Amino acid sequence: MRIGIIGGGAVGLLTAAYFSKNYDVTIYTRRHEQAEQLCTYGVTVICGDEQTTHRVNAKPFVRETEEDVLFLAVKQYDLTNILETRIHMLQANAIVFLQNGMGHVSYLPHLPHDHIALAVVEHGALKLDDTTVSHTGVGQTKWSVWKGEKETFSFLSSTSSRFAFQYVAHWETMLLEKLMVNIAINPLTALLRVPNGMLVTHEPYRQAMKQLFCEVASIFQLDQRERIWQHIETVCHQTAANRSSMLRDIEAGRRTELDAILRYVIEHAHKQHISAPITTFLYALVKGKELEGEKKK
Amino acid sequence: MRIGIIGGGAVGLLTAAYFSKNYDVTIYTRRHEQAEQLCTYGVTVICGDEQTTHRVNAKPFVRETEEDVLFLAVKQYDLTNILETRIHMLQANAIVFLQNGMGHVSYLPHLPHDHIALAVVEHGALKLDDTTVSHTGVGQTKWSVWKGEKETFSFLSSTSSRFAFQYVAHWETMLLEKLMVNIAINPLTALLRVPNGMLVTHEPYRQAMKQLFCEVASIFQLDQRERIWQHIETVCHQTAANRSSMLRDIEAGRRTELDAILRYVIEHAHKQHISAPITTFLYALVKGKELEGEKKK
Repeated sequence: MRIGIIGGGAVGLLTAAYFSKNYDVTIYTRRHEQAEQLCTYGVTVICGDEQTTHRVNAKPFVRETEEDVLFLAVKQYDLTNILETRIHMLQANAIVFLQNGMGHVSYLPHLPHDHIALAVVEHGALKLDDTTVSHTGVGQTKWSVWKGEKETFSFLSSTSSRFAFQYVAHWETMLLEKLMVNIAINPLTALLRVPNGMLVTHEPYRQAMKQLFCEVASIFQLDQRERIWQHIETVCHQTAANRSSMLRDIEAGRRTELDAILRYVIEHAHKQHISAPITTFLYALVKGKELEGEKKK
Repeated sequence: MRIGIIGGGAVGLLTAAYFSKNYDVTIYTRRHEQAEQLCTYGVTVICGDEQTTHRVNAKPFVRETEEDVLFLAVKQYDLTNILETRIHMLQANAIVFLQNGMGHVSYLPHLPHDHIALAVVEHGALKLDDTTVSHTGVGQTKWSVWKGEKETFSFLSSTSSRFAFQYVAHWETMLLEKLMVNIAINPLTALLRVPNGMLVTHEPYRQAMKQLFCEVASIFQLDQRERIWQHIETVCHQTAANRSSMLRDIEAGRRTELDAILRYVIEHAHKQHISAPITTFLYALVKGKELEGEKKK
């Protein structure tokens, strides 16, 4: 079976490396240079004291794909662009989405593919250069079927224990739970420039996060609020020293996934005629920081 | 006429210097060393290219005052402490409060003084050391009578044009307007670590400030909202390069006037059974930054 991976970021490289042992993997990159580097040097994964290098194919993403299964491992804002203008290039029997957020769900009914799975990545990963990714936190990837047969995706269970996939029955619950984690942790850590742990160990920040959580939970009419809140606190403790991806994006003056996360909440609230004062306020503050960074560039 | 000034901070030193030309001025300080320094070296004011030094008396604030008029030039949180435990030490015929915020107003009915004035300082001032203050922005000081006769305070009009006093009929409007300016500018600049001008030139920040302003204006059932909003925008433009006192306090790891400003709003909202989501959220974020700074010390 041939696997195609759209996106040469941290998640794309990590996924490519771990599937390359058993499958023929091709990474589709935005830049020619990265594709050339990957063909020459392979993907190197650093995990703890270990460093392993994996042979992969790579091409710039300019023509139709030719694999059986495609992983979409681009950021939410690049994905929107692909789904709006380049769906025809995504030739495959089955497709797996690896995005945070829920912005892409509305596009799914327009896809021609027979088998579509959604997944959320709960690993820590940091891209060090075009061919090297540091697997900073071994977690798992939850996945669920949006359309088609579960068996099509049975190959997911063949990966190493360091990159395990766990099946979840309800895709909506899965995405919403991950979205709640991202909403609670990412924008606040980016604004305050603190590692994840501070959101639970520093009481004023915990209160701010709780206030935000309660507002968003009401907007989504979330079930099992107490359990999900505890899950968020656990994630903060387990990743206490981590700097969230949004914080790293802000510090590097890069575009963030803010729109996929908070903009989505604001639009959802708007449609339901619910006010979202805290989410709107926080969105403006972090968007301001993002644009400050882009101006400096 | 003898003038006493409680507090050897930027506002206290500036006030002492400008009144010392025509009056016998004594500064009451918290620390013995500052009082000694002031007696030896006087107060030096740097304003533009000019530097002037003014003879003053100074004492640590441990006994009753002996002057005719007292200026209270301490921060809101120190003032609360004085008003709760040391009112008997404030011996004078008349008293002038120089605080931002409105936290002290509830104490005024308990004061035995016959003449009480309230004032808001609209100067830029930066204390450089125990005897030196930089007058970074020449503005004015608005004042109003809370109790007693206006004539008692006629000496206020005798100061130099660089330190002018402007009489205002309604003390509540005056304080509320100044409070609105501080609410809009101080906590946001401290959290975002930006100079005042960014709050109007950077659109996302302007939107966040507007959202905060609207919430607080509703809580106080503010009249003339459009005029006050425009006044706030003007202050941001006029002091565009300034770093607010709260931002400087946060950067130096000092306690801020956050409680006098946002805590006051939250309590006011609470008493009236109005929700204050944005104010509460912003309070938690800035309080968190304040405590982070104190921990590092």
